[in-house]
Amino acid sequence: MTIKLGLIGVGKIARDQHIPAIAANPDFTLVGVGSKSGQGVDGVPTFPDLAGLCAAVPDLDAVTICTPPQDRHIVIRDALNRGLGVMLEKPPGATLSEIADLPGLAAAKQVALFATYHSRFAPTVAPAKAWLADKKVTGVRVRWLEDVRQWHPGQDWVFQPGGLGVFDPGINALSSLTEILPLSPFVVSAALSFPANRDTPIAATLALTDTAATPIDVTLDWRQTGEQVWEIAVDTDAGPLLLSGGGAKLDVGGTTTDDEDKHAEYNGLYRRFAELVPAHTIDFDTAPIKLLADAFMLAKRTQVDAFDW
Amino acid sequence: MTIKLGLIGVGKIARDQHIPAIAANPDFTLVGVGSKSGQGVDGVPTFPDLAGLCAAVPDLDAVTICTPPQDRHIVIRDALNRGLGVMLEKPPGATLSEIADLPGLAAAKQVALFATYHSRFAPTVAPAKAWLADKKVTGVRVRWLEDVRQWHPGQDWVFQPGGLGVFDPGINALSSLTEILPLSPFVVSAALSFPANRDTPIAATLALTDTAATPIDVTLDWRQTGEQVWEIAVDTDAGPLLLSGGGAKLDVGGTTTDDEDKHAEYNGLYRRFAELVPAHTIDFDTAPIKLLADAFMLAKRTQVDAFDW
Repeated sequence: MTIKLGLIGVGKIARDQHIPAIAANPDFTLVGVGSKSGQGVDGVPTFPDLAGLCAAVPDLDAVTICTPPQDRHIVIRDALNRGLGVMLEKPPGATLSEIADLPGLAAAKQVALFATYHSRFAPTVAPAKAWLADKKVTGVRVRWLEDVRQWHPGQDWVFQPGGLGVFDPGINALSSLTEILPLSPFVVSAALSFPANRDTPIAATLALTDTAATPIDVTLDWRQTGEQVWEIAVDTDAGPLLLSGGGAKLDVGGTTTDDEDKHAEYNGLYRRFAELVPAHTIDFDTAPIKLLADAFMLAKRTQVDAFDW
Repeated sequence: MTIKLGLIGVGKIARDQHIPAIAANPDFTLVGVGSKSGQGVDGVPTFPDLAGLCAAVPDLDAVTICTPPQDRHIVIRDALNRGLGVMLEKPPGATLSEIADLPGLAAAKQVALFATYHSRFAPTVAPAKAWLADKKVTGVRVRWLEDVRQWHPGQDWVFQPGGLGVFDPGINALSSLTEILPLSPFVVSAALSFPANRDTPIAATLALTDTAATPIDVTLDWRQTGEQVWEIAVDTDAGPLLLSGGGAKLDVGGTTTDDEDKHAEYNGLYRRFAELVPAHTIDFDTAPIKLLADAFMLAKRTQVDAFDW
């Protein structure tokens, strides 16, 4: 018996990652998609929304929600109230307040709830976490430097209020960071650079620490041209660890492992969801979003050059 | 047997409110204070810090922490690890991330932990909450308009990163609001006004809602001269409710109640802490700070006139 799965929100991430990952996983059958725009998926029935999908497929087991964060909590709550397991593309919501009671609702309804952070399922993250578990971390440097014109061409929403700016990719760095470190990091100070004509930061430097007073420096910048850098460098009492390529590559203890499989992360998400759905388990970590909200709350703001595509 | 209490951080709020409230409550004996500056309290032994206090008073039961939010989590963690009950002046910390694991630590140590929001203990808040409990709320307007020059004269820290600006009093509004409303509010959008020469907002307008789509408008402004306004107006299916004077006055159902006792709020906090300490109970709500962090994260930022004292 496979899990009868629906998918709500058929955008770029659904087509590039979710649909191939679902197709590759024998535990799931994609029985329908909900698409406000009417854009469907070949060979899968398309409905305008969750209500339409549920009316046509009364024995639906679970849904993946890939709609934009705005107003997403209404769809999530609707799905949980219908007794469906729910998997969420990141971030789980637009605010911390609106998602605060979702785990309680899922528990009351006895259904699975999975707030995903795909970067945590990069092939090197679990080995990095395992290696760090018994080490003393003495310093961490995160650099997430990419060209917004290459990765979000013309997508003005990232610079609109709530669009999070450079934290849109930055949440990938923060989700991997919080996953691999043995102690939970928190923000001490933050400097955010806002383009003169935009509402979200194009660059950020954060000073984080933990209960052992470890210095953890995070640099996020969307103005990087040339080489793109997504790396977490960890110094320990047993030598350095370097996670690079956004988690594709790991250098530790004189060994390099490299995995260029572009689908590894989302395949991992669906393997995990296949465990959560039948067990009615809740996996709903908000640590990455808290770091992000804290950075905005504490920030020193600097105005920088206007940004145009 | 009274609770042997220490107080860490002897600033204005400790002298104006905590020390009189402790003196007025027969459940507590103030056995010592921790004061980095050496400023003490008449008739009470003074120590440089928590370690000095604990060395001199080995049977200490609990502490109240009134130090500034920055670096406060170190003191809190130290107190919990020593097996002391802990009461926190608001806000419980500088960030959401740094306080995330405190309830777990208190539970592991089996000690009380109390994140206080004094405005919730205004005499009208409990009656307002009780009256609203079975009503349908149709709209809410919060206005918290005060003159920063009158209430924080020359205190530059409120305008420095992490000082929260107009959210320093605004957290009082948000803590009362979240206490009295039957459904949890969350932020939909926010507009923050930053003085050209400052790092925190001097005014804010927030649009909140709840799972019933109730419109909840919040206006915070530190540029108010003349009449000072701290009020929450709630429209319901059974008529309006108006909480004003920051919670001193309640108008509902044709009746006005008025309580000008300036010590009612902190007396209420210590009555509650006297219940929590022997029961090892955790009362640690982060909803007010989440609303605040969410507002910063979603905000449309506007630059306004420079502010000087």
